Amino acid sequence: MNQKNSSKAVILVSGGLDSATVLALAKDAGFDLYAISFDYGQRHQFELQAAENVCNSIGVKKQITFKLDLRAFGGSALTDEIDVPKDRENSEMESDIPITYVPARNTIFLSIAMGWAETLGTEEIFLGVNAVDYSGYPDCRPEFIKAFQNVANLATRSGVEGNDKWKIHTPLISLSKSEIIQKGLSLGVDYGLTHSCYDPNPQGISCGRCDSCKLRLKGFEEANAMDPIKYQ
Amino acid sequence: MNQKNSSKAVILVSGGLDSATVLALAKDAGFDLYAISFDYGQRHQFELQAAENVCNSIGVKKQITFKLDLRAFGGSALTDEIDVPKDRENSEMESDIPITYVPARNTIFLSIAMGWAETLGTEEIFLGVNAVDYSGYPDCRPEFIKAFQNVANLATRSGVEGNDKWKIHTPLISLSKSEIIQKGLSLGVDYGLTHSCYDPNPQGISCGRCDSCKLRLKGFEEANAMDPIKYQ
Repeated sequence: MNQKNSSKAVILVSGGLDSATVLALAKDAGFDLYAISFDYGQRHQFELQAAENVCNSIGVKKQITFKLDLRAFGGSALTDEIDVPKDRENSEMESDIPITYVPARNTIFLSIAMGWAETLGTEEIFLGVNAVDYSGYPDCRPEFIKAFQNVANLATRSGVEGNDKWKIHTPLISLSKSEIIQKGLSLGVDYGLTHSCYDPNPQGISCGRCDSCKLRLKGFEEANAMDPIKYQ
Repeated sequence: MNQKNSSKAVILVSGGLDSATVLALAKDAGFDLYAISFDYGQRHQFELQAAENVCNSIGVKKQITFKLDLRAFGGSALTDEIDVPKDRENSEMESDIPITYVPARNTIFLSIAMGWAETLGTEEIFLGVNAVDYSGYPDCRPEFIKAFQNVANLATRSGVEGNDKWKIHTPLISLSKSEIIQKGLSLGVDYGLTHSCYDPNPQGISCGRCDSCKLRLKGFEEANAMDPIKYQ
C-alpha cells in the first residue's frame, strides 16, 4: 500500500466512516479512484448523499450509484420495516448475527464492483469490511474475502488467462474503530461528511443509540478525537 | 437428483432453452421451485416474457424478476449497442471469449439468488450453465461454480455454522445441446415457450443466425427433434 502507482481501483463507498477511510487510503497509495455506491432499498438516503460528499471531498475520477432493490427478498432491519435495535450492550452486539445483517449483501456488492472493474480494465477492488466490530457478519470475515478473490480469479477474462491478478483490498479488516479513525484523521478525512446511523431522524441527524452510532462514538472516544457530526 | 424431496430450491430462469430444462429437472427431483429472472438491461424483453411463460407452464411456487441495470458499466453486446455477430462458423464461436460475454454476470446473478435463497431458508440453487457450448465464458466453467459454492458457504448465516450446506446444482454443465433438448423433451418441456435469440426482430421472432440461434438449431437437429419456435 505504500507504493505510489497510477492504476485504477474500484472502491465501494457507503457514505460511512470506514469506506471514507478506505477511499483516503487508496488515494494515498496512488490509485485513480472509481467509487461505486449502492442504492439498494436501504431505509434512508442520507448515506448516499454522504457517499457523494465524501467522494467530492477526497477526489475521485468517477462515482456511480448502482440501483438494485434488495427489498425484493427482504430479511433485514436495514431494508425492512423491522425496528433497529437501540441501546444494546457491547456483549449483545457481539453475540450472534445482527438483525441488521442483509443476506448476501457484500457478495452482491463485490460482484457488481468486479463487473465494473473488469469493464474499466482493473483487477483492484477496495472494501471497508472490518472483522473486529462486525464479527457477527459472516461476509466481513477474511476467509470470505479470500474466497471471493478466488471467484474473481475464475469468473473473469483475466481469470481465464490463469494469472490470479485480482486483489480485494481490505485495509481495515483487523483494525479497531479508533485505529481506523486515527488513520483517517492523519490522511485528512473529513468525518463530518460521513453518515453511520441506522436510524436517523427525518432531518438526517444520527440517533446516537443504534449499534452503528455506539461503535462510532466509542471509536472517537478511544481515539481521543471529537466526532464532528451532530447527534439527536 | 433422483431422490424426491420437498425442500425449496431457487432456480435462475432466463427464458432460454437451458434454464427451462433445469426448471423441469429440479421439479422432477421434487423441489418446490422459486424462480428468479433478471431484468438487467438486456437488449430486448422477449426473454423475460419467455421466463414467465416457462414458469407458468412448469409450475413454480413463486417467480420474481429482479431489476438491476448492468448497462451502468457497459461492456457487452447483450447490454450495449455493439452489433451481435451473425453467421459465424463453429470454429469462430469456440475461440476466445465471445463479445456477448457480460462481465461478472453469473457471479452477480448467483449472489442475488443466494440472498433470496438465504431469506427463503434454503441452500439449494439451480443454474443452467453449460461448459460445452459456452466454453468461452469464464463464468460457465465448473471451477467457477465450485469457487462460488465456497463463497456461499462462507458468506451466509449457515456458513458461519461451518456445515458447508450450500449446493449450486448445474445439471447441464457437461451436456451437449442435443442431450439437453432430449432430457427436456422427456420431461415434457414446451420449448415453444422459450427464447434463445440474441437479436430478434421487433415482433420477437428469432434471427436464426446469431451464435445462440445456431447452437439451438444444431441441437434440435442432432436430437432429431423439431424446434417449435418460428424463425425469420
